[in-house]
Amino acid sequence: VNREVALGRPATVRGDPAALFERAGKGDRGALARLLSYVEEGGERSRAVAHLSYRAPEPYVIGLTGAPGVGKSTLGDRLVSAARAGWPNGAAPGSLHRLDQVAVLAIDPTSPLSGGAILGDRARMQGHATDPAVFIRSMATRGHLGGLALAVPDAVRLLGAVGFPLVVVETVGVGQVEVEVASASDTTVVVVTPGWGDSLQAAKAGLLEVADLFVVNKADRPGAAEAARDLRQMLALSPDQGWTPPIIETVAATGSGIDELWAAIARHRSHLEATGKLARRRADRVAAELHKVVAAAFERRLAELTVSPRYAAALGDVVAGRCDPYEAADRVLKEG
Amino acid sequence: VNREVALGRPATVRGDPAALFERAGKGDRGALARLLSYVEEGGERSRAVAHLSYRAPEPYVIGLTGAPGVGKSTLGDRLVSAARAGWPNGAAPGSLHRLDQVAVLAIDPTSPLSGGAILGDRARMQGHATDPAVFIRSMATRGHLGGLALAVPDAVRLLGAVGFPLVVVETVGVGQVEVEVASASDTTVVVVTPGWGDSLQAAKAGLLEVADLFVVNKADRPGAAEAARDLRQMLALSPDQGWTPPIIETVAATGSGIDELWAAIARHRSHLEATGKLARRRADRVAAELHKVVAAAFERRLAELTVSPRYAAALGDVVAGRCDPYEAADRVLKEG
Repeated sequence: VNREVALGRPATVRGDPAALFERAGKGDRGALARLLSYVEEGGERSRAVAHLSYRAPEPYVIGLTGAPGVGKSTLGDRLVSAARAGWPNGAAPGSLHRLDQVAVLAIDPTSPLSGGAILGDRARMQGHATDPAVFIRSMATRGHLGGLALAVPDAVRLLGAVGFPLVVVETVGVGQVEVEVASASDTTVVVVTPGWGDSLQAAKAGLLEVADLFVVNKADRPGAAEAARDLRQMLALSPDQGWTPPIIETVAATGSGIDELWAAIARHRSHLEATGKLARRRADRVAAELHKVVAAAFERRLAELTVSPRYAAALGDVVAGRCDPYEAADRVLKEG
Repeated sequence: VNREVALGRPATVRGDPAALFERAGKGDRGALARLLSYVEEGGERSRAVAHLSYRAPEPYVIGLTGAPGVGKSTLGDRLVSAARAGWPNGAAPGSLHRLDQVAVLAIDPTSPLSGGAILGDRARMQGHATDPAVFIRSMATRGHLGGLALAVPDAVRLLGAVGFPLVVVETVGVGQVEVEVASASDTTVVVVTPGWGDSLQAAKAGLLEVADLFVVNKADRPGAAEAARDLRQMLALSPDQGWTPPIIETVAATGSGIDELWAAIARHRSHLEATGKLARRRADRVAAELHKVVAAAFERRLAELTVSPRYAAALGDVVAGRCDPYEAADRVLKEG
């Protein structure tokens, strides 16, 4: 433990996952934070958390993605406030009920393990400081991108299992991770700002295909109408999937447009439920998750193999010209 | 065979690899072309070719890479002419000897299987039509990028084994494949043209790290000096590796600067040989190749597993909430 502290990393949190899970279900945020650290770390305790969570109903997941600086955090805070005020009740279309609690997962693929609440979280919590029903948590990589791709669905399932009906997942930056995280959402909101190239970049990064809704944030700046028009033109070229992503102009800083955004999210949720797409999407996601788990196991096996003495011996033979690479591979694989 | 012809693909070439290899070594270009098709296709015959080639001395490999339209083909033709005129003799530094034969591999990761000589090859061959010692061949993907990454070193080794002391490898476009192919060269030449952003793009694509030489081609256009300066500034930020990549301005269309380029390539070769880097680079390449072969085998196993009935059953259990993804993965992996 001392060594880890000396390295500037937080000491590993301890505790039995099952006991923590029970406490987290009763509203213990410290226990929940520990469980999320387990998920973030990966390994045995992460598996225990996944096992404790898998039977629970899944929360509804809103994904917020877009380039850095487009205002995702502010938008996320506004959505949390809107959710606390009233979330459409799927059981009775059109009706609303106040959500007891809302969780925000802020995914940062570029930063190292956060090990729990970081300063950024605390700063952001202030907006909801008087509202104990809002839980905000940063998640960083588990050392590699694949780790994050597995940690996010596990974290979402955990949050659902301990009583959160709604999870807002924010991602930082645009890239493959974004697309993966976005595909883990029920409603994916792609955020752009007015100005040259932003919407085009979203298209390039493959976000056009995963977007259920577009937000042109900071719409009080020049170029908002043009950005919306660019997106509309790009969408016109996409195949019809029975749902045309609406384009909402917002100013998150003032709250302008948030009601429209919220209404559009509710409409999208109704669409998913009415068409049976929600169940299909979630089944597809489970399939993708299982594939990632199995692929990660193969990657581990491969990594172990390539550091083995018999691999080194086979490589030595190829370098020395005693056999060709395929023969060497066969030998290594036969024994593996 | 008829079915393949009907699909618009050339009929699979036939012939015993060992017999073809012997004929190719005696200068039979038809036999060599068949063997390269085997390498391109992958599979058992490709392995046979690799086995026939692995004991032979490796040819010296010059890699030419850069964005489409920078003039790599013309530059490649000029280099071939220069090589035919005189190639520095490693055994006696400073001396030159005419190369008996030179091969050009034009790698196109975007086009489907070429199945042998394509129109582009024939058009290009005209420049060396009177010179039977020049062999030009396009190589396309084997259905996936990993395939090409394996096919290129196999093709290079084959060319060396049948008597080519020098192979020029050209790649089309800039991307991950480029970097891989470049890392398979002894001397990697990165080609840019004057004008905004070209050199910057090379840096972004990771070509700055793999470049042993830079060529600013079409240097009779405005901006050549600026492009060279940009590259020099970027290089100044790179760590010192004992070799500072020279920046050569050329006009491939007229032949201007080709002598300087050729001299720089010869200097780089001498540097690699004098420092022992050539042997280390080649050992690293063999290690990378073995890793790719083993990793490809793992990928095949994974792909087979995920279409198996027991995988489908395990996935069904996760979707139905009967177990968590990790349990399902364990079950699938245990039986695999």
